[in-house]
Formats: sequence, C-alpha cells, structure tokens
Amino acid sequence: MNNKFFASIAVLVASLCLPFAAQAQFAKAEDAVKYRQSAFQLMGSHFGRMQPVMKGQIPYDKAAIAANIAVLNEISKLPWAAFGAGTEGGGTKVEIWLDPEDFKKAQDKLAISLKALTAASDAGNFDNLRVAYGQVGASCKACHDAFRKKD
Amino acid sequence: MNNKFFASIAVLVASLCLPFAAQAQFAKAEDAVKYRQSAFQLMGSHFGRMQPVMKGQIPYDKAAIAANIAVLNEISKLPWAAFGAGTEGGGTKVEIWLDPEDFKKAQDKLAISLKALTAASDAGNFDNLRVAYGQVGASCKACHDAFRKKD
Repeated sequence: MNNKFFASIAVLVASLCLPFAAQAQFAKAEDAVKYRQSAFQLMGSHFGRMQPVMKGQIPYDKAAIAANIAVLNEISKLPWAAFGAGTEGGGTKVEIWLDPEDFKKAQDKLAISLKALTAASDAGNFDNLRVAYGQVGASCKACHDAFRKKD
Repeated sequence: MNNKFFASIAVLVASLCLPFAAQAQFAKAEDAVKYRQSAFQLMGSHFGRMQPVMKGQIPYDKAAIAANIAVLNEISKLPWAAFGAGTEGGGTKVEIWLDPEDFKKAQDKLAISLKALTAASDAGNFDNLRVAYGQVGASCKACHDAFRKKD
C-alpha cells in the first residue's frame, strides 16, 4: 500500500460523502427526512382542517380559511429542499431521485393549485373555493401516489 | 336508573370530552402533539442552520439569513394553538397546563427576541445580529428548561 492507494481511498470516500454534503442546511440525512416530514405534517393539518367547511359541515368563515391558506402557502415552499441526494428513505419512493423532473412537475402542480385556491379564497366565492380545494387535494394525491411509499 | 341518571352521565361524558373538543383544528390529541413537534422541528432546523454564520465559520449572507428568519417568523406563530387541554404528553412538562401564564410569557419572550433578530437582519449589522441571535437562543432554552421534558 502506498500513498497513491490512500489518495484513491480519500477520493472514493469524498465522492461517497459528496451527495449529502451538498445539502449544507442539514447536518445529517435524518435531519432532512424529519424536516420534510414535519413540513408535510403541518401542510396536512392545515389542509385537512378546512375539509368540514368544504363539505358544508361547518359554516364558511372567510378569514379562518384565508389564514389556513396563508400557512399552506408558506410551508409548501419548504419540504423540497430536503429531498437532496443521500436523503432517500423515510416513506419515499426512489422515483423522487430517479425522475427528478417528474417530482418537480408534481411540486409545480401543487404551487399552481395553491395559487388558484388563494385567489378563490381572496374572492370569497364558496363554490369556486370548493373546486380549487379539490384541485389542491388532487395535486397532493397525485404526488403521494407517484412518490410516497405506503406504510 | 332513570332519565336523570342518564342525563347526569351525558353531562359527565360531555364535560370529559370538552377540553379536547375545544381544539377543533385537531381531530385527536395525538394530531396536536405531532403538529407542535413538527413546528418545533422546522424552527430548530432554521435556527440551527444559522449557527455556523454566527460562529464565523461561514460568511454572513444577508439574504440567506433573512430567508431563515422569515421562516422562523411564520412558523413560530403556529405551535401554541396545539397545546390545548387534553394534549398533555409528547415530551412536555405538565407546567404548560398548570402555569399557562408563564407559558404564555415564554412564547412572548420568543416573539420579542425574534422581532429584534428580524430588525438586526434587516439592518444588516453582523455584530447586532449575533447578539440578537443569542437572545433568541436564550428564549428557546428558557422555555425548554421550564416546559420541555428531557428524554
């Protein structure tokens, strides 16, 4: 074994570390997994709590719905940065990393549907709001079907 | 057993359910626990990732720090609604529910320190930023010491 051998090993180790090291905002892959799961947990909560209104079970309160949508708009920006290379697992399908373009399209679909939901909420038209809510739900489901591993 | 007995039972059951039923945004106490833990997870991530800058290990990037603080400002509004009656547990001390005024003061301390951190970030003075960052950290720690149960 000579210096060349050790140099090769060093390069190999560095290249193995590289995919995750690129995710500077997370010290460990596990932190990225917890981060994105936390963001989805909050998104699910704020989306889900609007459902009784959309089903007509409780009255439409424009301000309360707008507050939930404002939170969704903020938090839905967050999870995607936590899907870097080396952070596979945590209930995900490997397609996220194999088909990054499709995964990005799914994210964009959510952003577009949330924009429509925000517009409908701002306008205060309940019928339009329900349609837009359904479309956000559809974009959540499409992404889960394609990229989330069932327990 | 007569109607009066059943009426009494009904009132008893209703009163037992009431503390948690008041938290309409969470279907189950477990959902509230997951929700607040998720919010703290995101807050910890965005606070923690600024530390290397504050320690002088990586250069101060004004926009990147401002982006983290913007997220902290949004998410730090969220967890408190998930500490309703009936949601004890999940790494918390019972003092949260025994001393609600003290718990509220701890929340206010965080809000005040975050406001100062935001102002320092907007002004772009690194020395002031570091001091304000330390004060946010101190408000996190004070609340954890008083109200978080160690694992």
